[in-house]
Amino acid sequence: MDYLEVEGAREYVARLDHGADWRGQIEAFADDEGIDAAFFYGLGAVQDARLMFYDQDDQEYEPIEFDEPLEVVPAVGNVSWLEGERFAHTHVTLSRADGSVVAGHLDSATTFAGELYVREFDAKLERAHDETTDLDLWPL
Amino acid sequence: MDYLEVEGAREYVARLDHGADWRGQIEAFADDEGIDAAFFYGLGAVQDARLMFYDQDDQEYEPIEFDEPLEVVPAVGNVSWLEGERFAHTHVTLSRADGSVVAGHLDSATTFAGELYVREFDAKLERAHDETTDLDLWPL
Amino acid sequence: MDYLEVEGAREYVARLDHGADWRGQIEAFADDEGIDAAFFYGLGAVQDARLMFYDQDDQEYEPIEFDEPLEVVPAVGNVSWLEGERFAHTHVTLSRADGSVVAGHLDSATTFAGELYVREFDAKLERAHDETTDLDLWPL
Repeated sequence: MDYLEVEGAREYVARLDHGADWRGQIEAFADDEGIDAAFFYGLGAVQDARLMFYDQDDQEYEPIEFDEPLEVVPAVGNVSWLEGERFAHTHVTLSRADGSVVAGHLDSATTFAGELYVREFDAKLERAHDETTDLDLWPL
Repeated sequence: MDYLEVEGAREYVARLDHGADWRGQIEAFADDEGIDAAFFYGLGAVQDARLMFYDQDDQEYEPIEFDEPLEVVPAVGNVSWLEGERFAHTHVTLSRADGSVVAGHLDSATTFAGELYVREFDAKLERAHDETTDLDLWPL
Repeated sequence: MDYLEVEGAREYVARLDHGADWRGQIEAFADDEGIDAAFFYGLGAVQDARLMFYDQDDQEYEPIEFDEPLEVVPAVGNVSWLEGERFAHTHVTLSRADGSVVAGHLDSATTFAGELYVREFDAKLERAHDETTDLDLWPL
């Protein structure tokens, strides 16, 4: 396991905007505050969601869309640089009225309500292409 | 996205009481320690659970009850003030022996065992009625 | 609820090794760095997974195995001492291409890719046998 010891920097409690994209607004916030490395977790609800499953054999992302209200139970992710832009790598567990669940890598979702804790680190994390997985990972 | 920069204050590692309500004992702990703003996450198991799904159209909570042993994988939430009392907004993902899962907003659950990390912030978070969602959210 | 106020110590951002056991490499990292108490959360993907469900009546762990690629959405856990060794108590929510989900207490899983945030505490946590649950819990 490769790892980097980091120093905690700024911390935030956030309330996501109703009607706006869950992931996009985390990235816009990171841009506004100049956050180059962070982890976050939170909870809330969305009006729809588009997940992406990474096929480990074909090494391609396959989309799955859910056009229904879902609880976010929770969202977990991090902020780092990817191809010149800040990227919020975000995974979500989503639930329905009967308790049933879907989950995965979040592409986009329309926020109903959301609460987030963000911990910035005094570091700059930047993703680079990884040959083995064909993913963009941190060279730590 | 509205947000508040916060200063980290006290931190706790906790062991939840067997047989007591999962959410209630987090709120009792917050009262005992005078915690006005915190995020937490943890894991464990419960003997039963009552979840609440928020219907985004009717703007009402609908209960769902599970009277069976379930793993808590994980619990994520926060502590803030709601109508004059400390409230632990808690979401849980719960699993069975065959790996199957239910999840959602936690009303109550009888703890079998539980481990929690709580991070307090040097702030007071208080929920207020939000017109758009009819939920109690933080005016940050 | 029993609890211990802790002081935050070192913090790490980690990238898990492709092909290595998810939990084992967290424990090896904790050994290398001398971490005696920590909580962590993260996300990623695995090539297979073996979960363990604790039967609350029989007080025995029952294994369930999944021999398929799965997203880790998320992993949440902690590091403490158990019977003379560092143990990473880890729960995972795992998802498939169609969004379907299994979850539980992680025994082992072959990492495809993984990203973790680890927060160490200036404490030593050690598990001891608990009579009520027959689990190894922290006497806080």
